[in-house]
Amino acid sequence: MVGGGPGAFIGAVHRMAAALDGEYRLLAGSFSSDFDKSRETGDELGLAPGRVYETYSEMAVAEGALPEESRIRVVSIVTPNHLHFPVACVFLEQGIHVICDKPLTTTLEDAEHLCRLAAERDLVFAVTHNYTGYPMVKEARERVEAGSLGQIRKVVVEYSQGWLATLLEAEGQKQAEWRVDPERGGVSSVLGDIGSHAHNLVRYVTGLEVRRLFADLGTVVEGRQLDDDATVLLELDDGVRGLLFVSQISTGERNYLRLRVYGTEGGLDWSQEDPNRLRLVAPNGSEHILYSAAGELSKRAQAHTRLPGGHPEGFIEAFANVYRNVARTLSDDLEGPFDRDFPTVQDGAHGVHFIHKAVESNQRGAWVDAAYTPPSAGAEA
Amino acid sequence: MVGGGPGAFIGAVHRMAAALDGEYRLLAGSFSSDFDKSRETGDELGLAPGRVYETYSEMAVAEGALPEESRIRVVSIVTPNHLHFPVACVFLEQGIHVICDKPLTTTLEDAEHLCRLAAERDLVFAVTHNYTGYPMVKEARERVEAGSLGQIRKVVVEYSQGWLATLLEAEGQKQAEWRVDPERGGVSSVLGDIGSHAHNLVRYVTGLEVRRLFADLGTVVEGRQLDDDATVLLELDDGVRGLLFVSQISTGERNYLRLRVYGTEGGLDWSQEDPNRLRLVAPNGSEHILYSAAGELSKRAQAHTRLPGGHPEGFIEAFANVYRNVARTLSDDLEGPFDRDFPTVQDGAHGVHFIHKAVESNQRGAWVDAAYTPPSAGAEA
Amino acid sequence: MVGGGPGAFIGAVHRMAAALDGEYRLLAGSFSSDFDKSRETGDELGLAPGRVYETYSEMAVAEGALPEESRIRVVSIVTPNHLHFPVACVFLEQGIHVICDKPLTTTLEDAEHLCRLAAERDLVFAVTHNYTGYPMVKEARERVEAGSLGQIRKVVVEYSQGWLATLLEAEGQKQAEWRVDPERGGVSSVLGDIGSHAHNLVRYVTGLEVRRLFADLGTVVEGRQLDDDATVLLELDDGVRGLLFVSQISTGERNYLRLRVYGTEGGLDWSQEDPNRLRLVAPNGSEHILYSAAGELSKRAQAHTRLPGGHPEGFIEAFANVYRNVARTLSDDLEGPFDRDFPTVQDGAHGVHFIHKAVESNQRGAWVDAAYTPPSAGAEA
Amino acid sequence: MVGGGPGAFIGAVHRMAAALDGEYRLLAGSFSSDFDKSRETGDELGLAPGRVYETYSEMAVAEGALPEESRIRVVSIVTPNHLHFPVACVFLEQGIHVICDKPLTTTLEDAEHLCRLAAERDLVFAVTHNYTGYPMVKEARERVEAGSLGQIRKVVVEYSQGWLATLLEAEGQKQAEWRVDPERGGVSSVLGDIGSHAHNLVRYVTGLEVRRLFADLGTVVEGRQLDDDATVLLELDDGVRGLLFVSQISTGERNYLRLRVYGTEGGLDWSQEDPNRLRLVAPNGSEHILYSAAGELSKRAQAHTRLPGGHPEGFIEAFANVYRNVARTLSDDLEGPFDRDFPTVQDGAHGVHFIHKAVESNQRGAWVDAAYTPPSAGAEA
Repeated sequence: MVGGGPGAFIGAVHRMAAALDGEYRLLAGSFSSDFDKSRETGDELGLAPGRVYETYSEMAVAEGALPEESRIRVVSIVTPNHLHFPVACVFLEQGIHVICDKPLTTTLEDAEHLCRLAAERDLVFAVTHNYTGYPMVKEARERVEAGSLGQIRKVVVEYSQGWLATLLEAEGQKQAEWRVDPERGGVSSVLGDIGSHAHNLVRYVTGLEVRRLFADLGTVVEGRQLDDDATVLLELDDGVRGLLFVSQISTGERNYLRLRVYGTEGGLDWSQEDPNRLRLVAPNGSEHILYSAAGELSKRAQAHTRLPGGHPEGFIEAFANVYRNVARTLSDDLEGPFDRDFPTVQDGAHGVHFIHKAVESNQRGAWVDAAYTPPSAGAEA
Repeated sequence: MVGGGPGAFIGAVHRMAAALDGEYRLLAGSFSSDFDKSRETGDELGLAPGRVYETYSEMAVAEGALPEESRIRVVSIVTPNHLHFPVACVFLEQGIHVICDKPLTTTLEDAEHLCRLAAERDLVFAVTHNYTGYPMVKEARERVEAGSLGQIRKVVVEYSQGWLATLLEAEGQKQAEWRVDPERGGVSSVLGDIGSHAHNLVRYVTGLEVRRLFADLGTVVEGRQLDDDATVLLELDDGVRGLLFVSQISTGERNYLRLRVYGTEGGLDWSQEDPNRLRLVAPNGSEHILYSAAGELSKRAQAHTRLPGGHPEGFIEAFANVYRNVARTLSDDLEGPFDRDFPTVQDGAHGVHFIHKAVESNQRGAWVDAAYTPPSAGAEA
Repeated sequence: MVGGGPGAFIGAVHRMAAALDGEYRLLAGSFSSDFDKSRETGDELGLAPGRVYETYSEMAVAEGALPEESRIRVVSIVTPNHLHFPVACVFLEQGIHVICDKPLTTTLEDAEHLCRLAAERDLVFAVTHNYTGYPMVKEARERVEAGSLGQIRKVVVEYSQGWLATLLEAEGQKQAEWRVDPERGGVSSVLGDIGSHAHNLVRYVTGLEVRRLFADLGTVVEGRQLDDDATVLLELDDGVRGLLFVSQISTGERNYLRLRVYGTEGGLDWSQEDPNRLRLVAPNGSEHILYSAAGELSKRAQAHTRLPGGHPEGFIEAFANVYRNVARTLSDDLEGPFDRDFPTVQDGAHGVHFIHKAVESNQRGAWVDAAYTPPSAGAEA
Repeated sequence: MVGGGPGAFIGAVHRMAAALDGEYRLLAGSFSSDFDKSRETGDELGLAPGRVYETYSEMAVAEGALPEESRIRVVSIVTPNHLHFPVACVFLEQGIHVICDKPLTTTLEDAEHLCRLAAERDLVFAVTHNYTGYPMVKEARERVEAGSLGQIRKVVVEYSQGWLATLLEAEGQKQAEWRVDPERGGVSSVLGDIGSHAHNLVRYVTGLEVRRLFADLGTVVEGRQLDDDATVLLELDDGVRGLLFVSQISTGERNYLRLRVYGTEGGLDWSQEDPNRLRLVAPNGSEHILYSAAGELSKRAQAHTRLPGGHPEGFIEAFANVYRNVARTLSDDLEGPFDRDFPTVQDGAHGVHFIHKAVESNQRGAWVDAAYTPPSAGAEA
């Protein structure tokens, strides 16, 4: 693991997600740019001292030089955004598979470079757009694919948070600091941090890509360097109307990611804060509520559920589904048709492209073309 | 009453709203352009046959000629949109007060004419933007006004329906037919029918006016003459960011009107399908849920509630609040400070202006200025 | 109307319920034992002064002596419980139909006397167990009757309130005072006030009667004369297991009446504070949510709905369904098969019997037989 | 681990709960009475073949004979109920700590024996009444303890499931088979399986013990050997009124465990299927909703939360809190005041006592005394 030292949030999530199903063991790490902190974290996690490294480059080289049976097979990259690219590069170059947090990179060029590199080396490269790991998101995808909603006509995705409603970055809050710093967060804070999740969720569930978009980005909190609120009008494939709006200044909202898809035959509605529930709306206005592990779920949803109905699964379990599927993909025995169901480096490149197109539209105050095909990936294909 | 004959929906609502508090008696009507149907309705409603009129003009003149103690004091106009203007004119000219359904008119010129006419004649002119009649909407307004949310930063209003997801107008459905007919519905179906409600709700609760807007209107159902889906980005007073999206093709949605307002100190959230509940969100992510007639409600909300907490009030009760306040305004004894709390002809003109600006923005594909001051109204001022 | 003077709650509800559909006109009243207050109320309601009476007996006699076309056809009795009986008697004896609040009487003897009297005189006698007026309660009944739930196995009904969590009767609160006074409220406060509603709801929806019961009544608030919390175990027809629990001291609860019925093929769940929604649960754990006026509702439910889906109807509308059905029963032209769907004097007698059996069980600390057949009623049969 | 072989549900839960925080490694097991199946499971879990044992006795002896640094420190017992006792005995006798599923034993005598044995050997003995591991349950306890609800007056706990609505045990469903078999499940199915959880939840949150009870147990599904539905009236300490009702035949219910506590100053409401939310109701009928990891939570709740607000945690995380606290208790460095917060062998004995008293009450058809003090436990005290 690279990143995830003291004070980090997402590093611990990755570790729990990896531990849950017993398919990973943490062997090595470079958890912080401060070597003392890194060693402290390594110690807490029970790592052999020799496998806690001062820098990620050193780690990549050293691990790459170990015999295959003892070296790490896959690295988790949980650093601030701007480091995803260089870290991923050195590990890929050592033939080590990658699980990387989102957004994939801060420039599209970097993202495409990673696509190509992973393909050349035939390595697995997963990007943790973890929200697609939820069983009921998978059910939603299956329902769309099976045509239960008829022809899709409208998509609304929202991701509202309130945690950046104050100038938190000025108070020394680490999580806030790097996200709103153009050097470390990228060209957009709100789109990089949560907009890319919303965008990925739309693509995963509907199978539709963004063709054109009109974005309005705003910086609501005075003194902030990057945006913290955005609305993006979407034209999806087949002219489907889409709306994506995301915010970090919607005071009081916790982590309100919600997707609605409307078709000619019905609609669906899923909300991340109530993740075990999928609302299907019928043309006549009645609703069918599906619950995780209860009722008539698709094989894809069932394959990503661990408990019987009424036993809530949450964020970590969804995240763990990404990890588990990567593990199965890396292992020789795939257990089922959904083992390769995880977001790839190409999905990551799509996200980076989307962010940049939205920034461009906002600057020009106009609709822009946003169709995109990333360079072909490797092992995931 | 003008309009509201067989097959109409909103006429019956107006009649129940007027009856609920016992402040109105229905005395005369011209319910349909088909005199037989009109007489049939008049008969069912127990009207004296002599006061069911063949045309609205005839009715206005005849009633205007009656002695003051027996003639109607106020007329309810519940016709398709294009008739609001001519009907309102003739009654105003006879010195009869008006309660008119929305949108006020199909052109801004007409709307302004009515503003001036009502002012000149010193007549009350209410427009039934009935959703502001809900007690918890009034509570929301009071909370904003009292500064509970701090400085407002973001407003999201949504109004999603699915009833026009098919080409219902081709199947002889009367409600659908006139709404999507440019001759009778106006320049926009979705904005006239529900967008104007959403716009009014934002203005009522936040006290903020739209300064600029960017609209994207769409006609999703093939063969339809007017739009059925719209997203409008708003710049409100003080640069507050706003988003309004409305749809008649969101299959399965019943009547999902929801308003959220976020400020520096908290947010609020109200949904029309669960109207007795107001969600207040705190910066720390916990919520305070207020219920109609329970808890620490403002005097304004209390004044518009008829039952103790836990006894649901609904659409008709909210509508009746508009009627009751008009009745009190017309009577000599106002009972409280909120008796004049109903949407006026000026509010109606604001709505018509908004619709036209959105259509203009959509045509130009650009942000347009949308600041507006209607001609001063009369008795309501 | 008898009762419903200043400070009363339910009188105003009856008046709004009667007004809503335009099928009633209020002609006469004796609103209070204090004649001045009664005249004040009569004046506010626009009654002719000569038809506001000093006593209910005087009113019954005077109205009974009027010619048929001008006298009242039906009287609404909205007094404290102990007066229901004497008031109903004098009006029935004058040949005037009755709509009476619940519980019907304070003794079973009185209740049965009213059953017989109404039958002898062939008069309509409705008891306002208003909760069965909700469309979705009617839908629930239809679903049970149609066998959608299979064979019923278990019923849970709950009615929790918190308004009597303090010794409100000592603070001069009129509503509280008479309810917890054995002289005026009867043998049980909590069962008379809300338990009888819960009992009626079970009977209406399931068609099952109570065969045996075990009751545990408690007086939680010190100094109170009657009970304020009760749990009653039920054995219903066919040995179906039932549980009824009601409380006036569940601090913070508003008016939480909820019914659940479980059968071999599914369950249903309805809650009064969210009345436009009926939850049907499938054996596999998924849910089907029906909404008032939307979706595949039965004719019975549709016949009791005034608005399209998504336009909430509430307590008054449900109450008005009782009034409207009485009006249609009294009129010569019944409009449909559900016009006689209202709670009768026999239902009222069932409620009174239930209350007394529960009190008996509590005193004996044992299960008691509770099967009951009231004397046959008249016009309603 | 003893138990948890192929087809078991709870064994996998224990393994995930143990893995989540990285504080456990699975070293040995006897997963099934069928040694082949046991080896298969051991293999899948990556155990050394020599540490998969044919019988639990063999395992206890062999592990007990290993040097301290390599042998297991704690055994998880996840067998059917009747085996909890003999398995726990042999491991305790070898000086190995125990984590045992509930109900602790099938007889009170056995339960008390385990209490004494654990105390004598000074061993930790946890019972996985896992629902008290949820952060919001811990918050509920803190709120009660802090007096936020005033003096407690009423407690309602419900646990409704529908999975045994058919005679599942006749279809070879393993989970059902042993639960409703008196030989393996004990004297009551519904109380052993879920009633004991409900009872434990009441005790944990309110700190109140059951003094007297009246139970009505029923076997609804024909052909079943044990009960599947129960209502128990409770008299708690200080005369607080309590109601506990549990069911396995409430068709369509998934895992609906809900606790409500009402006091003089307010009420609280928690539901397991929506576990990150705690509803606090105020005397005036408004509500305050607390969310896991958001808002003003107590230190106890915070100490059992892994993620920021809006990131749902579920069943496994709550279960893992039991495991983590046991691990910390066993380690030398307790990290905080809540490390010993897990259900003990004494809590388990309370549960067994409750089950037996309820069965006794049901047989006698009478209230029975139910006060109880288990033999003192050891390391947990």
